[in-house]
Amino acid sequence: MGHRTESMDTKEIDVRSLSSSNRHTLPYVHKVGVPPKQNLWKEFSAMLKETFFSDDPLRSFKDQSRSRKFVLGMQAIFPILSWGRSYNLAKLKGDLIAGLTIASLCIPQDIGYSKLANLAPQYGLYSSFVPPLVYAFMGSSRDIAIGPVAVVSLLLGTLLQNEIDPIKNAVEYRRLAFTATFFAGITQAILGIFRLGFLIDFLSHAAVVGFMGGAAITIALQQLKGFLGIKKFTKNTDIISVMHSVWGSAQHGWNWQTIVIGATFLAFLLFAKYIGKKKKKLFWVPAIAPLISVILSTFFVYITHAEKKGVQIVKHIEKGINPSSVNEIYFTGDYLLKGFRIGAVAGIIALTEAVAIGRTFATMKDYQLDGNKEMVALGTMNVVGSLTSCYVATGSFSRSAVNYMAGCQTAVSNIIMSLVVFLTLEFITPLFEYTPNAILSSIIISAVISLIDYEAAILIWKTDKFDFVACMGAFFGVVFHSVKTGLLIAVSISFAKLLLQVTRPRTAILGKIPRTNVYRNIQQYPDATKVPGVLIVRVDSAIYFSNSNYIRERTLRWLTDEEEQLKKDGLPKIQFLIVEMSPVTDIDTSGIHALEELYRSLQKRSVQLVLANPGPVVMDKLHASSFTSLIGEDKIFLTVADAVLTCSPKFAEDV
Amino acid sequence: MGHRTESMDTKEIDVRSLSSSNRHTLPYVHKVGVPPKQNLWKEFSAMLKETFFSDDPLRSFKDQSRSRKFVLGMQAIFPILSWGRSYNLAKLKGDLIAGLTIASLCIPQDIGYSKLANLAPQYGLYSSFVPPLVYAFMGSSRDIAIGPVAVVSLLLGTLLQNEIDPIKNAVEYRRLAFTATFFAGITQAILGIFRLGFLIDFLSHAAVVGFMGGAAITIALQQLKGFLGIKKFTKNTDIISVMHSVWGSAQHGWNWQTIVIGATFLAFLLFAKYIGKKKKKLFWVPAIAPLISVILSTFFVYITHAEKKGVQIVKHIEKGINPSSVNEIYFTGDYLLKGFRIGAVAGIIALTEAVAIGRTFATMKDYQLDGNKEMVALGTMNVVGSLTSCYVATGSFSRSAVNYMAGCQTAVSNIIMSLVVFLTLEFITPLFEYTPNAILSSIIISAVISLIDYEAAILIWKTDKFDFVACMGAFFGVVFHSVKTGLLIAVSISFAKLLLQVTRPRTAILGKIPRTNVYRNIQQYPDATKVPGVLIVRVDSAIYFSNSNYIRERTLRWLTDEEEQLKKDGLPKIQFLIVEMSPVTDIDTSGIHALEELYRSLQKRSVQLVLANPGPVVMDKLHASSFTSLIGEDKIFLTVADAVLTCSPKFAEDV
Repeated sequence: MGHRTESMDTKEIDVRSLSSSNRHTLPYVHKVGVPPKQNLWKEFSAMLKETFFSDDPLRSFKDQSRSRKFVLGMQAIFPILSWGRSYNLAKLKGDLIAGLTIASLCIPQDIGYSKLANLAPQYGLYSSFVPPLVYAFMGSSRDIAIGPVAVVSLLLGTLLQNEIDPIKNAVEYRRLAFTATFFAGITQAILGIFRLGFLIDFLSHAAVVGFMGGAAITIALQQLKGFLGIKKFTKNTDIISVMHSVWGSAQHGWNWQTIVIGATFLAFLLFAKYIGKKKKKLFWVPAIAPLISVILSTFFVYITHAEKKGVQIVKHIEKGINPSSVNEIYFTGDYLLKGFRIGAVAGIIALTEAVAIGRTFATMKDYQLDGNKEMVALGTMNVVGSLTSCYVATGSFSRSAVNYMAGCQTAVSNIIMSLVVFLTLEFITPLFEYTPNAILSSIIISAVISLIDYEAAILIWKTDKFDFVACMGAFFGVVFHSVKTGLLIAVSISFAKLLLQVTRPRTAILGKIPRTNVYRNIQQYPDATKVPGVLIVRVDSAIYFSNSNYIRERTLRWLTDEEEQLKKDGLPKIQFLIVEMSPVTDIDTSGIHALEELYRSLQKRSVQLVLANPGPVVMDKLHASSFTSLIGEDKIFLTVADAVLTCSPKFAEDV
Repeated sequence: MGHRTESMDTKEIDVRSLSSSNRHTLPYVHKVGVPPKQNLWKEFSAMLKETFFSDDPLRSFKDQSRSRKFVLGMQAIFPILSWGRSYNLAKLKGDLIAGLTIASLCIPQDIGYSKLANLAPQYGLYSSFVPPLVYAFMGSSRDIAIGPVAVVSLLLGTLLQNEIDPIKNAVEYRRLAFTATFFAGITQAILGIFRLGFLIDFLSHAAVVGFMGGAAITIALQQLKGFLGIKKFTKNTDIISVMHSVWGSAQHGWNWQTIVIGATFLAFLLFAKYIGKKKKKLFWVPAIAPLISVILSTFFVYITHAEKKGVQIVKHIEKGINPSSVNEIYFTGDYLLKGFRIGAVAGIIALTEAVAIGRTFATMKDYQLDGNKEMVALGTMNVVGSLTSCYVATGSFSRSAVNYMAGCQTAVSNIIMSLVVFLTLEFITPLFEYTPNAILSSIIISAVISLIDYEAAILIWKTDKFDFVACMGAFFGVVFHSVKTGLLIAVSISFAKLLLQVTRPRTAILGKIPRTNVYRNIQQYPDATKVPGVLIVRVDSAIYFSNSNYIRERTLRWLTDEEEQLKKDGLPKIQFLIVEMSPVTDIDTSGIHALEELYRSLQKRSVQLVLANPGPVVMDKLHASSFTSLIGEDKIFLTVADAVLTCSPKFAEDV
């Protein structure tokens, strides 16, 4: 490490000397630091830690007594033990109002959503009873509202009906639904326990926006059945099949009484939504509008007996709370694997939604949320749900927003909602008998409309065209083919983008910004000037096997282009190629090979290879592979400015 | 763009003024440039160009007449038309010597390798006749030696025998081999035509080293059958099964005469190899040693009639050149798909080998090689080969090295070799009748030994531990299970590495290197000092959906850690968080969301967010999404030094 000691001694007369006049008498410059050699195990465990425990979840356990650790552990699993102790009446007031509001919103939605999943209406209500209770004990988000949601219901419904006919084989269908729910929970919990939560980040925001928008359109289209009172309807979810069904039944399949009821209440719901948007204080108007619609329309049908004129009604909802479904889950046979596959997909989509909601509100109220712990909570909740006749529940965008605006303080609002649903199940369900299906369709349509986030899509278009392609790919995939196709397109495009990034990193030619020591991309700073006889290339990525050849070839092409230009202009040729390595955060063996090959090619052209500011990891590896001794330690500089000072002292003087 | 004009005006008194004493009277600093808005189509086509035409293959076609373009086009497809015109006698001399040398090496190797592919010996020779001829016309590498190679022969052999028994159904097996060869060629050509050549870069150098080493061991183990004269031998290639076969037959299955012949000549071959390594001038000794061994041992067996004492001999090689195999390829039926799958895998592995060889020698002699064009040449060669009874041919490591050292000048050396093989097929094959199999085994063992690149493995261990895991994974996968498993492990680990890179990028805390304006990682430069009241974090990667949440959380954690430390030490708290964006080459919508969330969280903690040096693309997107107006244009600086100058003028003064 001789060169390091030297650099320490010469530090007094380094870059600073640039601006003094006698800089040429002391052309020393700062040397690039080589970080202290790391212990292999330390390095490895640091990598593991960053990958799986980047949020340092065990921080609070440090230096604690055993019993304290047990308490902390229990509090980690059941956060209610921690925040419950400071719970008070003021908080309860907020939670009570919020809980009642989301309950009034969730009851009609649940009944509608269970239809999307091809299940009887009570299963939607069941899923708003048990899962929120479990979540309240284990979850750490204070604002999320738990229950069935539109997109997951649709996804589950379409995936399940590919396997079993929901009408002909209703029992098997329901059993498979519980099986899928069970494995959705298991998948979620496992991702959390093994701290693989970051995997859901691989579904990009743009893809999610497109997917959600497409799913919303699909769900709205499905509602045309109830809304128009059509009896024969396609099982496919793509827009072409649905439109075919709709027009095909226009002659005799539509029921005008249904349409009148549906349209009236849809207008009412949309108007309520509009009011809520206009005045934030009136958020409760759209929140209770669905329940009011249900009550009014049910009463109306009951007194006019519109059901005899072809208006379809709910007819029957099972009374009483969730029965056990432990024995209904397929733990053996063909359906085990199918249930697992469907559950894994539905579980991951449900997670994406819940985690996004949790993060949004945590940022708004500035509290920390451990994504992995959330997943364990959501997973447990779904496993318990699957044993008590629930299907996949997760956080609902619309109800969480209402919950937040209604002033919820803690997860107690979920408990309140759950209790209201309990009372509904025990006492009120028979009253829903005359509720027209058209109202449920209107409620669903008005609910999913807000999932079409066209503003986000416009912003995506403005910021990143590639993201927009992913967004539209997912959207059209869902609308024109199926939910599964849209999802597949979204994931594929997201991955393609990542791979493109690591295969074709950017490179840039740097120039000197006049009267500074700063070297920047000449495309971004058109007044930056190139250094005569020196080409400065910045490589904007870690150099790995996937891009090392490209980087080598691209750098040589920059050189060739530059030399051709210089020849044309009759200027002196390039003598130094400075590679600015600041953005090169890592290098692997293929990368070092590429650098060696670059060095050899440059030698043939009598151009010197010079490196500027390699980072700690890169420096370490360049040393280990003896690349530094190949090109010479004195060819590695702390900054581009230092390198230019040595390569072209005359130019540097003209600062 | 008001702020830009301003920055132009103030440029005279910018960072440079740092070192003047009156800097506080004029605290203006350089503004970050916003690149000129790009046309959408231009942006898109630039991306396409970098991805698929990064080597600018049409450069020479620019501004040329039509007829000239045709000539250039023909020369692009058949490079021989271009270099053939300057061919002369001096070059022919070099090529003649090199061609004869590699011919003497390839003939015995071909016979041996065809056994690895479970084909009769003449097919190896066929594959050294037609493919090299085709390559000579279409390829652009001057040093590669074309023909069957050990690893691809083994791979093809094991994949094919999973489908068809090569002994019981020899005809179908051969037909499937030609089908696979056909599709290997098609795969290679298509990758080249669609300029997807970069896909083979996804197999990392480390993985290839491990895979090749494992394959070499496997091949050597397979030779124990011929070497020990064992008759009953396992079909599996893993070391456990092979050793079981070997020890199981130790009592009565070994033939001592065979062992004596094999061992003697193996010692001779290894000694020749040693000589060749010691004195580079004697490279021809190991090159002709195999042929000498074949001649000597054949003569020996012929006069002693050792074949009657259990020494297995070649027995019969079909005389005459390649028959047509057009009608043998399965263009329909089940075997079409199987042939395609096997061919695609074998074709890609063959490509990896050929392209690596081509690149190595192109760098050594400093000529350009268009990887995609090479793929088209190799693909065409294999398609033609498959129609003329050849199996997959590619560039051979060992023979190419010999070709280079023997002084080859152009691909004419391949033509010479091809002609010698032609003469061999026409006249000499009957003489191989008495060649003992043990000799072929010895030749193969001595050939594949050099594929075990333990020096490279040591270097990989030294430079990159993760690469080493990929290398060993591939190695042990091949040795202990199968070639396919090893390949799968290699590809999976390589991909995992890439994904890890984009999921968990590095971040670093920067400090000021004393007496400079340079801010660097405090881990690499322990004497760098932190700026009081300011935390400088560098993010070392593009911010994409896959890492945006991590980056946000990690940055906040740096802040929390720092604040805890400051609190303990009783120092003033952090007021500014400077994010050094130099390495952030791109950002997507999720990334901007994360920045917004970061900004909001910081506001809650009354910490100001400041950005330093965002690149052109990032700047563009920050503008498009109005993030710049959210945090304020004046919070974005050209350099960290500028930012510190504004945030903590007192500290900056102490330079």
